[in-house]
Amino acid sequence: MNIPNNLIRPLEYTGYSLKILDQRLLPGQELYLEFTKADEVIKAIKDMVIRGAPAIGLAGAWACCLAAKDNNLKNDESQLIEKFEEIKQARPTAVNLSKAIERMKISLQEKGISGLEEEALAIFNEDEAMCQMMAVYGLTLLPNKSEYKFITHCNTGSLATAGIGTALGLIKFLAGQRKKVKVFATETRPYLQGSRLTAWELNKCEIPVTLMPDSAVAYLMSKENIDAVFVGADRIVANGDTANKIGTYTLALLAREFKIPFYVVAPSTSIDLSLSSGAEIEIEQRHSSELTEFNGLKIAPPNISVLNPAFDITPGNLISAFITEKGIFNIEKLKNIL
Amino acid sequence: MNIPNNLIRPLEYTGYSLKILDQRLLPGQELYLEFTKADEVIKAIKDMVIRGAPAIGLAGAWACCLAAKDNNLKNDESQLIEKFEEIKQARPTAVNLSKAIERMKISLQEKGISGLEEEALAIFNEDEAMCQMMAVYGLTLLPNKSEYKFITHCNTGSLATAGIGTALGLIKFLAGQRKKVKVFATETRPYLQGSRLTAWELNKCEIPVTLMPDSAVAYLMSKENIDAVFVGADRIVANGDTANKIGTYTLALLAREFKIPFYVVAPSTSIDLSLSSGAEIEIEQRHSSELTEFNGLKIAPPNISVLNPAFDITPGNLISAFITEKGIFNIEKLKNIL
Repeated sequence: MNIPNNLIRPLEYTGYSLKILDQRLLPGQELYLEFTKADEVIKAIKDMVIRGAPAIGLAGAWACCLAAKDNNLKNDESQLIEKFEEIKQARPTAVNLSKAIERMKISLQEKGISGLEEEALAIFNEDEAMCQMMAVYGLTLLPNKSEYKFITHCNTGSLATAGIGTALGLIKFLAGQRKKVKVFATETRPYLQGSRLTAWELNKCEIPVTLMPDSAVAYLMSKENIDAVFVGADRIVANGDTANKIGTYTLALLAREFKIPFYVVAPSTSIDLSLSSGAEIEIEQRHSSELTEFNGLKIAPPNISVLNPAFDITPGNLISAFITEKGIFNIEKLKNIL
Repeated sequence: MNIPNNLIRPLEYTGYSLKILDQRLLPGQELYLEFTKADEVIKAIKDMVIRGAPAIGLAGAWACCLAAKDNNLKNDESQLIEKFEEIKQARPTAVNLSKAIERMKISLQEKGISGLEEEALAIFNEDEAMCQMMAVYGLTLLPNKSEYKFITHCNTGSLATAGIGTALGLIKFLAGQRKKVKVFATETRPYLQGSRLTAWELNKCEIPVTLMPDSAVAYLMSKENIDAVFVGADRIVANGDTANKIGTYTLALLAREFKIPFYVVAPSTSIDLSLSSGAEIEIEQRHSSELTEFNGLKIAPPNISVLNPAFDITPGNLISAFITEKGIFNIEKLKNIL
């Protein structure tokens, strides 16, 4: 496969620090920030220096390792556990962070501080392998063609994972098999993950990408034969309802309208069977300035209300299939995954 | 009615020049540019100094008056007509511009140059009156409640017309009758008419507005009881298919999904019975830089493809009713309007 994944590393643990690529500066600048304290990583996650459900989980796991090196915490397990809990709360919607921290807590209790780095590395390596497996399974769903046209939303590639990515990983994997692949990427307001991250990543991989406003998807679907929509997930609950980047719900409804398969590509770590329906998922509301300002310029009048949910819930019945590292599942069989 | 419309004038003809409020600078700055040549007005329309289907028509009509004052044109009717045709081509999708210029041509032929200003003023005054009538008719569609929640898209207010507006005019008119009205406005990428213009205009009128990304409409509809969606139109053709700001088609599909009435509010000058279906409407594609740059900052990698249609076509069967200055019409009765 001819995909230069080694060029894109969203985070790197050095043994004494965590280097995180500042995704807020892309595509203009590729700058790694270096953190030595868990609190700094918590802030970086909140501020979206790093984002993407799996990548947030990884950053959280490494933050636990940094916490365990902190002289104020390392000799007091209850305080350390408290810090782990703080890390877990950095962002609420994606379940991957919460699951990663739970693993780190169990590791701490079973093996003590010395086992934490090994556990974080295991989470990292497993995530990389899961990306590969999702791509392999995902390809079995596609008819054999010489050319494909896909729509994707937000960024679900190397920048969001330890590997090739989830939804975007699958697309990159297919392109690596000498198939002609054309990707239509939504710009994904307000944070512009599509313009800034997905277009940048596909460009690096030399896969043709067409950028469009989030609002142009219906227009595109009415004009072009789209083979599938691929999106990631922040949390998939027992009935198949899926929290993902704001706009995913609309994409799923449009896909149904235009009879286009709509696939969620996510590792099993994104599945949360403790919740029975999407209504129970906490949706993070982000700051109004993401909509009222841009690069220091006021783009809306002051003192207006803003609705800025980071995610929405796509009803499970709009999802053609869930592509995981354990295979392809429909909503009836979702409970058999874990 | 307590609506300060006199505060918002998108354009003003002085007798020797046309002053146009530069809508690209809103909400930060209220600056009028003054033009004395038709070519300058053509460029201002292309560059979106002024926008909104009715307002573009008005700017075009006044541009004809400026052309008729040009020493190089005023003594050569065929050259003057040629300039009128150039004005008509400034932007292709909205039919109002084309219709306004046709009226100016007929006036020129019937009354000569001296009748042009009167004709342009008539178009202006008629547009203002039509706004009022649309609001009056539109209110008959609404149940009598103490509080309403509406969604609107793009800007269809005073900034887009000679009066209170079309879709937004109706909402402002209702608010002026001491009804509690809450407006949810999409930001309307890429030009941000929602953030920059609609939020600004509603703010001036002291009507509560909540700004949201275009992609958050499904989320909103799933959480709040929305009474109706009101949008404008750039061109309505014989079968009811309606060209309007990109994203309108998606809004209409979402409204159907959530069983919310979806109303197009437009003067009869937006109706074009010469076309039988929306497929015949020319959709303007705008420059890629609207998506790849913002305020001088590159927000996407260079050399990617961009899909940036300014409009989409909403199928007539998704439109609950057309609210015009001649009354309320459904798609079957549309042909009786003109």
